[in-house]
Amino acid sequence: MFETTIAAFQQILGEEHTLTDASALQRYGWCTMPLHRRIAAVLRPGSVEDIQEIVRVASAHRVPLYPISTGNNWGYGSAQPAQHDNVILDLGRMNRILEVNTDLAYAVLEPGVTQRQLYEYLQQHRIPLALNPTGAGPDCSILGNTVERGFGIGPNGDHFLAQCGMEVVLATGEVLRTGFGHYPGATATYVYKWGVGPYLDGLFTQSNYGIVTKMGVWLMPVPECFEACYLMCDSEQQLGPLIDAIRQLLFTRAFYGPINLLHRNRALIMLDRYPWEEMAGRTPLAESIAARLAARKRIGVWNGVGAICGSQAQVTAARDTIRRVLKGKVDRLTFLSDKKLRLLKRFPRALSVLLKMNVPELLKTLEGSYGLLKGIPSEVALSLAYWRNRRPSSAAGMNPARDNCGLMWFAPIIPMTREDVFAFRAIIEPVFAKHGFEACITLTAVNERCFDCTLPLLYDKDDANEVRKAQECYAELVENCQQRGYIPYRLGLQSMTEETARDDVFWNVVSKLKTAVDPQGILAPGRYAR
Amino acid sequence: MFETTIAAFQQILGEEHTLTDASALQRYGWCTMPLHRRIAAVLRPGSVEDIQEIVRVASAHRVPLYPISTGNNWGYGSAQPAQHDNVILDLGRMNRILEVNTDLAYAVLEPGVTQRQLYEYLQQHRIPLALNPTGAGPDCSILGNTVERGFGIGPNGDHFLAQCGMEVVLATGEVLRTGFGHYPGATATYVYKWGVGPYLDGLFTQSNYGIVTKMGVWLMPVPECFEACYLMCDSEQQLGPLIDAIRQLLFTRAFYGPINLLHRNRALIMLDRYPWEEMAGRTPLAESIAARLAARKRIGVWNGVGAICGSQAQVTAARDTIRRVLKGKVDRLTFLSDKKLRLLKRFPRALSVLLKMNVPELLKTLEGSYGLLKGIPSEVALSLAYWRNRRPSSAAGMNPARDNCGLMWFAPIIPMTREDVFAFRAIIEPVFAKHGFEACITLTAVNERCFDCTLPLLYDKDDANEVRKAQECYAELVENCQQRGYIPYRLGLQSMTEETARDDVFWNVVSKLKTAVDPQGILAPGRYAR
Repeated sequence: MFETTIAAFQQILGEEHTLTDASALQRYGWCTMPLHRRIAAVLRPGSVEDIQEIVRVASAHRVPLYPISTGNNWGYGSAQPAQHDNVILDLGRMNRILEVNTDLAYAVLEPGVTQRQLYEYLQQHRIPLALNPTGAGPDCSILGNTVERGFGIGPNGDHFLAQCGMEVVLATGEVLRTGFGHYPGATATYVYKWGVGPYLDGLFTQSNYGIVTKMGVWLMPVPECFEACYLMCDSEQQLGPLIDAIRQLLFTRAFYGPINLLHRNRALIMLDRYPWEEMAGRTPLAESIAARLAARKRIGVWNGVGAICGSQAQVTAARDTIRRVLKGKVDRLTFLSDKKLRLLKRFPRALSVLLKMNVPELLKTLEGSYGLLKGIPSEVALSLAYWRNRRPSSAAGMNPARDNCGLMWFAPIIPMTREDVFAFRAIIEPVFAKHGFEACITLTAVNERCFDCTLPLLYDKDDANEVRKAQECYAELVENCQQRGYIPYRLGLQSMTEETARDDVFWNVVSKLKTAVDPQGILAPGRYAR
Repeated sequence: MFETTIAAFQQILGEEHTLTDASALQRYGWCTMPLHRRIAAVLRPGSVEDIQEIVRVASAHRVPLYPISTGNNWGYGSAQPAQHDNVILDLGRMNRILEVNTDLAYAVLEPGVTQRQLYEYLQQHRIPLALNPTGAGPDCSILGNTVERGFGIGPNGDHFLAQCGMEVVLATGEVLRTGFGHYPGATATYVYKWGVGPYLDGLFTQSNYGIVTKMGVWLMPVPECFEACYLMCDSEQQLGPLIDAIRQLLFTRAFYGPINLLHRNRALIMLDRYPWEEMAGRTPLAESIAARLAARKRIGVWNGVGAICGSQAQVTAARDTIRRVLKGKVDRLTFLSDKKLRLLKRFPRALSVLLKMNVPELLKTLEGSYGLLKGIPSEVALSLAYWRNRRPSSAAGMNPARDNCGLMWFAPIIPMTREDVFAFRAIIEPVFAKHGFEACITLTAVNERCFDCTLPLLYDKDDANEVRKAQECYAELVENCQQRGYIPYRLGLQSMTEETARDDVFWNVVSKLKTAVDPQGILAPGRYAR
């Protein structure tokens, strides 16, 4: 029976793009989380028409399809399906940049377009537009991250907010165009999000209602002037006033996009691996060693970074406003521009003395984060996945799943008040410590009113005991935060079944809608919906 | 049969809030458009529990319910249902301001809360937050306008974008809470829009899928510094370069919210009634008279208004940037602050000479638009509904539906390029002229990439001949614009049946979803869905 299905898929795609060999299936199963799904096959369609045919075959044969864009959903499940025995639909071959509109600052992308690819395209064609990369590295799909409602730290940080217009293949094989896209010759498909009638795009994010094959993405016109703002606090006591100040600065739009507050631990894990030797194999990292490492690298207890953009006058005003509001609240405050970065590179030693900073060390992270803010994808944030990995680095570049890194993300949303941040820390920090892990908090202001706190649970995936502890720690984090009303903005595969099974009106409606658009449950069963 | 239904409703609400008398039904039928729906009854629930019971009765008796908030959907159908023989569910009694969070700058509102009510609440309690009023007047519902995806011209202009968290009574009588709202004790319900899992809020805008009974609305913290920017161009030739400049200024965030470009005709209709006498009863308005009226009131051919907010330094920088970018592109550019407004009021004559403007005339409109930008609801924009009305003004304040004003809105979205704006004008202006009406264009930049062009079709509703011409004009506008890809962001009742009947995948999916959540079609049948 399954063989006839495979044969039918081969008819559509040829053998080359219908993968059933063990090594391919294994590769798609690489994951930073301790879970394993049996994968039935992998299909690599080259077009919307391919997908339509595949969906019809899958429907006739009742074979579940699991679409991925590039499958680099690190720490949430990578390419693995939510349930066993799905056929993975790898959309990576569909990687055309279909349109870039310079005046109106948007691009229309297929699922396989990576951050690197769009960046290089813009550079090569000298198009003065910037994307907003996530920290997940250059080879991640922009569309994939957007339908997962991921975010970056630069302008247009909330990727779903910066999305406009979708093309979706439904379980029926029909092609749905959202917004104005279903009107022939519509002129505003990629410039006005809502269209007319019910706004449907939200249904195709964090769900399994359709296969998104095309998407408009808003980009930022390269501003006349760009600077990155770096701030540091040397004590925990400063966090409360800092949060109030950040909220004020966001409301007054001194920063152009999100601002990112990194706890010392979070900065450390991006710069190095766990000091196994110094710690004599023990976990979690001792406070004294953490403090020493941080001092050597000139990392504050809290470290902030955000972009300021605009005309020269606007950037100067933003800088002045930030200086005034943060006065007395931070220990160091620096603004970095292209010009200053060139100077730092040329005269690292002199500037170290002048700025009272360790410039060569700083540059390593500065350049990465500065680049991310400016729209240059990099691996600067991805490296944290390797924190507890004891294997040697691969020459082939970073791939946390391939390299068996242990990473599970837990990412709740916290209202932007000091009370909430303190209450939240009081819940999670003891849980991390109890199970032998470091709490590596980063607070990203995805808007003016809340932080997205992406917490990586980093463990040695080659150590069965640590894996078990990580799982226990994760479960306790979820449970304790949920009880106190801190809910994750996104789920890992390990949470989906339990979460969507809740007998509440919301998840029941989600399930009803799923049945309406995909009565056979052909598309990604179990992914954010029953 | 219907009498038992009414009796069942009376059991829930009492006679007082179950209206069936002719005069009440007539009042709810007041409309600025030439269409009439038979209304079966009007119910005025006082609580979510009332609504749940009503929905269950309606479902058992198969009686369609048509929810309105305040019913002031002027020019799109007012309070009238999409189809005959609906029972209107008037949510106006549910008008509690349930929460205002000053730090996080949001309010949680019931459907009956009006713009005036929230404004006065904030004033009375000295809460330094500002709302974003629409031009539809102080007595309109904030929630109602938001679920219609309306907008205002000040900060947080796109109302659906500034909405966060909904409570919805479904056709089953169940209560759905969107975003994080369905998690007990969730802390981020009103600060993070998307929640986890599919984003559903969009389903309850421009639709008939549920009855929205509560909503979080983002407000703006009163900025340290606020100014309104007014610009004027004296010739049509300036519009092209002006559009490019406005796009640039929006991308660089010199303006805090939308900017509004008003054509001379649009400004005229807000200031006066049609000069029937001068025109000897003829239509449309002669160019020579329009030019003379505009000159007397110092109205430019194109007139722009937008808000700049921030710290003192930021506002100064924004002002400088605007001056620089608009240099040579506009004939007059003025910035208005509270201080300057006080001066104008005190020394109108001296300032008229100084500013080369007719200050007393200007003040009439300036104060209204300035107030709208600052969050003060007013009737300044509503007055346009009376343009061709020949009845004397009512002492009871403005109510275009009661006063039998002739107004139909046609509001397509236009990409923010000169090519699109020119192409669009070339379509619509001859159509208006042909049927004897003025094209009163306003282009509101609802984001950096497009204009929402709200075109009022204003006619004398007491004149059957003019009514017929208005209907023909409207149909031709819709038809010609659709053909060229300029699609309205919102529909009037007269367009809904035809629009949603289109056999395309989008409207078919909309219909499928409707069936999934309301299989009996109890809620607002025909409203943005079959």
